[in-house]
Amino acid sequence: MSTITAVATTDIRFPTSEHLDGSDAMNPDPDYSAAYVEIITDADDGHSGHGFVFTIGRGTDVQVSAIRALEAYLVGRNAEELLDDMGATWRDLVWDSQLRWLGPEKGVMHMAIGAVVNALWDLKAKRAGLPLWQLLSRMSPEEIVDLVDFRYLTDALTRDEALDILRAAVPGRTEREAELLERGYPAYTTTPGWLGYSDEKLERLCREAVADGFSMIKLKVGGSLDDDIRRMGIARAAVGPGIRIGTDANQRWDVDEAIEWMSHLKQFDPAWIEEPTSPDDVLGHAAIAKGIAPIPIATGEHSGGRVMFKQFLQAEALNVLQIDATRVAGVNENIAILLLAAKFGVPVCPHAGGVGLCEAVQHMSMFDFVAVTGTTEGRVIEFVDHLHEHFVTPTDVRGGAYRAPTAPGNGMEMHAASREEYEFHG
Amino acid sequence: MSTITAVATTDIRFPTSEHLDGSDAMNPDPDYSAAYVEIITDADDGHSGHGFVFTIGRGTDVQVSAIRALEAYLVGRNAEELLDDMGATWRDLVWDSQLRWLGPEKGVMHMAIGAVVNALWDLKAKRAGLPLWQLLSRMSPEEIVDLVDFRYLTDALTRDEALDILRAAVPGRTEREAELLERGYPAYTTTPGWLGYSDEKLERLCREAVADGFSMIKLKVGGSLDDDIRRMGIARAAVGPGIRIGTDANQRWDVDEAIEWMSHLKQFDPAWIEEPTSPDDVLGHAAIAKGIAPIPIATGEHSGGRVMFKQFLQAEALNVLQIDATRVAGVNENIAILLLAAKFGVPVCPHAGGVGLCEAVQHMSMFDFVAVTGTTEGRVIEFVDHLHEHFVTPTDVRGGAYRAPTAPGNGMEMHAASREEYEFHG
Repeated sequence: MSTITAVATTDIRFPTSEHLDGSDAMNPDPDYSAAYVEIITDADDGHSGHGFVFTIGRGTDVQVSAIRALEAYLVGRNAEELLDDMGATWRDLVWDSQLRWLGPEKGVMHMAIGAVVNALWDLKAKRAGLPLWQLLSRMSPEEIVDLVDFRYLTDALTRDEALDILRAAVPGRTEREAELLERGYPAYTTTPGWLGYSDEKLERLCREAVADGFSMIKLKVGGSLDDDIRRMGIARAAVGPGIRIGTDANQRWDVDEAIEWMSHLKQFDPAWIEEPTSPDDVLGHAAIAKGIAPIPIATGEHSGGRVMFKQFLQAEALNVLQIDATRVAGVNENIAILLLAAKFGVPVCPHAGGVGLCEAVQHMSMFDFVAVTGTTEGRVIEFVDHLHEHFVTPTDVRGGAYRAPTAPGNGMEMHAASREEYEFHG
Repeated sequence: MSTITAVATTDIRFPTSEHLDGSDAMNPDPDYSAAYVEIITDADDGHSGHGFVFTIGRGTDVQVSAIRALEAYLVGRNAEELLDDMGATWRDLVWDSQLRWLGPEKGVMHMAIGAVVNALWDLKAKRAGLPLWQLLSRMSPEEIVDLVDFRYLTDALTRDEALDILRAAVPGRTEREAELLERGYPAYTTTPGWLGYSDEKLERLCREAVADGFSMIKLKVGGSLDDDIRRMGIARAAVGPGIRIGTDANQRWDVDEAIEWMSHLKQFDPAWIEEPTSPDDVLGHAAIAKGIAPIPIATGEHSGGRVMFKQFLQAEALNVLQIDATRVAGVNENIAILLLAAKFGVPVCPHAGGVGLCEAVQHMSMFDFVAVTGTTEGRVIEFVDHLHEHFVTPTDVRGGAYRAPTAPGNGMEMHAASREEYEFHG
């Protein structure tokens, strides 16, 4: 038996805007940041639980204060009680009526709950001596559905339907675990495509991506149509016809504008257009999907959560679903979203990059492969090659694939020295 | 010329849970609260700008910290520059890329922007010597559309269409102002219907509401079907057949459950069912609307904002649109929503109650009557009779109508003594 004794939060900011890494049509100068939380217990096993919300600079202090508001819920609690029934733990946090008022289920308060939920999963996985993806993949279908809150989802996915999906994937779990450990999970890279890079840098990074074994890259678009046409031309020439090129507008357009703009980029055979408009606009995405077919639409990194994803799937408003490790309320909600996507037969290609998102979200895709859909077909995890050195178990991406992590935990633990060095002091 | 010298924030909490005022199916014990902001300048006119976010207890500190994060944007700025172009001021705040990441346009950060925007409007109205509704109603159609951000809205409402709506309402503005000052704006009362009240208290308050001149009351439902049937029977018997009875489920149900539950309450002729399910579920509301027709659906107090309202209107997922004074990014966004509703011909019946929401939102409805739709038909503003004594210009509701406020400002200024007495200290 152990008790949670402290919830330590840190405002961490990396000065990435100096080099225009991460620049896109809507975010010209992000300072990649994290509202970080470490959950500490009095157990003498040396384990603590780590989680964070990825932010891009100003406002990280607000996100930290939201995580701190959950301290009263955690400190003094029996850790086993929380960890043994993570479904109940999630519901207690998300359905706290007073905190819920601040969303509901969206924005700063919801992401704060996500950081805490993820940190508890980190602790649980470390105590089990397993990487998170493996811990989840070895749970029974019944245990997995118990993690999910089906309220508001039942018109699209019931508990029984979710159980059927999970039960159908039980055969072959062992083989798929072994396959992951041997070959990893397909990745694509966004490293070449930031808007702030010169044409020369773009071309060089495109060639390097292909040489590194990636079969897909992604370019930021939406700033200027002339620039986009020129940059897409450079990229397509550099990678050749066999490599997929995703495009990402980062919410830049209105509905008609998106359809018009993409008509000019169609010639470069884009693998998808990501975030063409407001991330909350289900009906707008559905209209764009019709207007630009057969170019697929990808979205999700800014989605409010499971109720929004449900609608995007119901309305056929996305063709590629992009979960994010820290935008929703943690592992439990991402499992709900994976199950929704499986029900609708839509591939999940997670958003990553930022600070530690690659380290975190790979666990969800690997769990999906082993225990939910049983396939990686049409599925890739985003990869951006920066800031990995700050993590205790950094991603290992080789030959265009995420190597399956074997270290216990959820991948979100940052080196104490990095946390100290980049702590932001007003 | 004046400069903003300070942004004073206060965490204010009223212990309303002691008396079960405000109790409903999802919020059993709210402590009505406010994350309050006062914007102070060096002008010697004695005016400061007041705004707040309504909250219900825990987490008010998080909301306060989000407002504080905007201090850097405001302090030291020229007040006239901000107030003279409130459209640009709104866009600068909402489109700050780093803060936007924390929403976007929803949750704690977006509401914080709303508090600041509303406080600036309070200052602007006080300087003009006019109540907010009158200040807005006297602006030209061109000035009004300049306040609105049409990004993401153009597939449903363009700037030109909004101009047409506003220009059509220019004739008769003066007469409608006079009419408002004489007769007020129709109100309905939720005072009788909280879930925590006894049957005797419910019945007594229903009779009092009719005696007070209200033609509509509202009951909270969704806790227990048997209780709802009994309470609706008591209320209908108490008020008679001529009085409208709204019902409010506060997000309690899934789609099928809402349809089933309302089939049992249909016999009492409900004026509408409010928030039957998740406030983000456009498609779910559309399905419920079909399933329970002709009972109207009302929703909006928890809506993420203009992009969500756009979709609710496009999908015919609501029949009564309920704006809230502090859920979205202030006056500007509520004007966008009023214009959307006008375009789609849907009546706006604001959410109120809480702390100061009645004082604030009446200005939007009165502006709508004078300068947007020109009618109060099918329109009522919610009224809950508590906590008004804490406001400098409390609502004046008589004979079932909100009397038009004549004091300069937006109505959100709370007495300094109240702010001091109910300030929450950890």
